[in-house]
Amino acid sequence: MKLYENLLTQSGFIHKDDLHYPFDERGLQFGDGVYEVIRIYQGNYYLLTEHVERLIRSAKAIKLTLPYSEDQLYKQLNELLIKNKVTSDAKVYLQVTRGSAPRDHVFPGVSANFYAYVQDLPRPTTRLQEGVGVITQEDVRWHNCYIKSLNLLPNVLAKQEAKENGCFEAILHRDQTVTECSSSNAYIVKDGKIFTHPETNNILHGCVRSRVKKLAKQNGILLEETPFTLEQLNDADEVFLSSSTAEVMPIVAINQSLVNNGKPGKITRLLQTAYEQDARIKKTIF
Amino acid sequence: MKLYENLLTQSGFIHKDDLHYPFDERGLQFGDGVYEVIRIYQGNYYLLTEHVERLIRSAKAIKLTLPYSEDQLYKQLNELLIKNKVTSDAKVYLQVTRGSAPRDHVFPGVSANFYAYVQDLPRPTTRLQEGVGVITQEDVRWHNCYIKSLNLLPNVLAKQEAKENGCFEAILHRDQTVTECSSSNAYIVKDGKIFTHPETNNILHGCVRSRVKKLAKQNGILLEETPFTLEQLNDADEVFLSSSTAEVMPIVAINQSLVNNGKPGKITRLLQTAYEQDARIKKTIF
Repeated sequence: MKLYENLLTQSGFIHKDDLHYPFDERGLQFGDGVYEVIRIYQGNYYLLTEHVERLIRSAKAIKLTLPYSEDQLYKQLNELLIKNKVTSDAKVYLQVTRGSAPRDHVFPGVSANFYAYVQDLPRPTTRLQEGVGVITQEDVRWHNCYIKSLNLLPNVLAKQEAKENGCFEAILHRDQTVTECSSSNAYIVKDGKIFTHPETNNILHGCVRSRVKKLAKQNGILLEETPFTLEQLNDADEVFLSSSTAEVMPIVAINQSLVNNGKPGKITRLLQTAYEQDARIKKTIF
Repeated sequence: MKLYENLLTQSGFIHKDDLHYPFDERGLQFGDGVYEVIRIYQGNYYLLTEHVERLIRSAKAIKLTLPYSEDQLYKQLNELLIKNKVTSDAKVYLQVTRGSAPRDHVFPGVSANFYAYVQDLPRPTTRLQEGVGVITQEDVRWHNCYIKSLNLLPNVLAKQEAKENGCFEAILHRDQTVTECSSSNAYIVKDGKIFTHPETNNILHGCVRSRVKKLAKQNGILLEETPFTLEQLNDADEVFLSSSTAEVMPIVAINQSLVNNGKPGKITRLLQTAYEQDARIKKTIF
C-alpha cells in the first residue's frame, strides 16, 4: 500500500527515507509511548478531533509531554495531508515516545520523538459486505487498556492466533466477560438492543465506538454499555466490531460457529449505512 | 557510563554509531520482542547460561525465531566481550524483535532484528551496603510477566513513581499479594525463613532469583516459594530484592516505614556475601 513520502516529526517534515532511530529509542526498548491511527476518506480526516483528544489523554496518562500543542497538532496533521496531496482513502499512523536516551526505566530528561505518516488504505469492502470470522481468547493484557500505548505484544499474539485460525480478529474476555477485540471494540445485538463493554480502564475508548453510540441513538436503537459474557456472545442475534480501519464490521462466525446463519444482521447493516453517511463516503457499498 | 563501540547485530558486528532503525521496526511500533540484561564482573559473564536459556524461552513464548542458535549465541556473546576488550564490571543489553516491516499486527514474513551492546556498570556499592527504600504499588501488568518482553511501560511508570518518592524500586502486588518489583524479584525473611513468589506466569523467573535459591540452600537457609501479602511484607524481619544489576539488595524502608530499624538484616547480608563469592567478585565489599 502506497506510503506517502512526507512524514511529520517533532522537528517538522522529513522525507520517509530519512527517518531513522538509534537503538536506544525508548519506544524500541520499553514501548514507552502512545499512538493513534486516524481514518481518511477521499483525502479528509474522519473523527480527527476524537483521535487528537485521545492522544492527549493517553500521553497525559503516561506523563508524556507531546512536542505539539493541540492547536499545532491539528495544523500539522492537516499540513501532512496537503504536503502529500492526499485525495484517496488512507490512514495516518502517528506515535510519540519518551525520546532517545541511554536505557534506564526512569524518565530521561529528553524531549519526545514524534512521527506521523500517511498510507493509502482502501475500505475492506468484501469483509464489510460478507462479515468476518473471529476466535475467542483470554484477555491477558494489562489493566490500563484505555491508554493507546505501544505495548502491543498481547494484541499482536492474539491477532496472529486469529489469523492462524483463518479469522480476522480475536474477541478477548476476562473471566468469561468480553472486553473487546485485539484491535477493535466488540458488540452484540440481542432482541433489538446493542450491548458493549462500558468505558472502563480495561478497554480502549474507541473513537468509532463513540460514534457508533451516537449513530445508534440517532437511529432509535438502544445501546447499553453493560458487559456481556461469552455465553451471551454465543447466544447473540448479531455480533459486530468497530475500529477506524474496520469501520462497523459484521462478525458472522465465532470459533467456527455461525452467527445469524452466517449473514450480517439487520441492525449491523443499519449502522454500516449510518457510518457511510456520517463519514461522508461518496462511493458507498450499502 | 562508557558504551563500548562494537555492537553485535543479526548480521555480525557493527560500530555503535552505525546502528539505526527505520520507523516501522516492530520493537518501536508494538514492543514485539524480548530482551536480556547480563551481568559482567571483571570482564566475565555471570549466569550467562541462565540468561541465554531464558532468552530462548521468551522468544519461543512469543513465537519469535532468533537469528542465532544457542551455540552461536554463546560464541557471539563471548566474541562481543573480546572485540571490545572488556575487563571491567559491565553489563550486556541485548534485544530481539520480529523485524522491520510495514505496520500490521500479524507476524510479517521478515527475519528478526537483534542487537547487543556492552556498557560499563560499577556495582551499586553504597546501596548494597546501606540498603534502599521502596514503595508499594498495584501490579497492573499483563498476565505473562515470565516473558522478558519489551512491553515495559507499566514497569517504567512504576519505577518512575518510586523515584519521585525518593525510592529505588516499587514492590508490586495483585490484590494484596506481592508478585515482584518493577525490575527485580522480591523476598521477605520471617523467623529465619525466606519467602518469595513462586515461578508462575505472573513474575519474571529471575536468573539471580534462581541463584539466590541455590545460595540459600547451600547456606542452610530455608527458602519457601509461597506468595506473601502486603501485610506479611510490612511485618517481615528482613526484606530484599534481587536482579542482575542490583544483585542481592537490602530493602530498609517500605513506604517510608523502616524495616529492621532501617538496617540490612543478617540473612540478607549472608546472601550478599554468598553472592560475591558465587560471582567470583575480587573487590568484595562484604
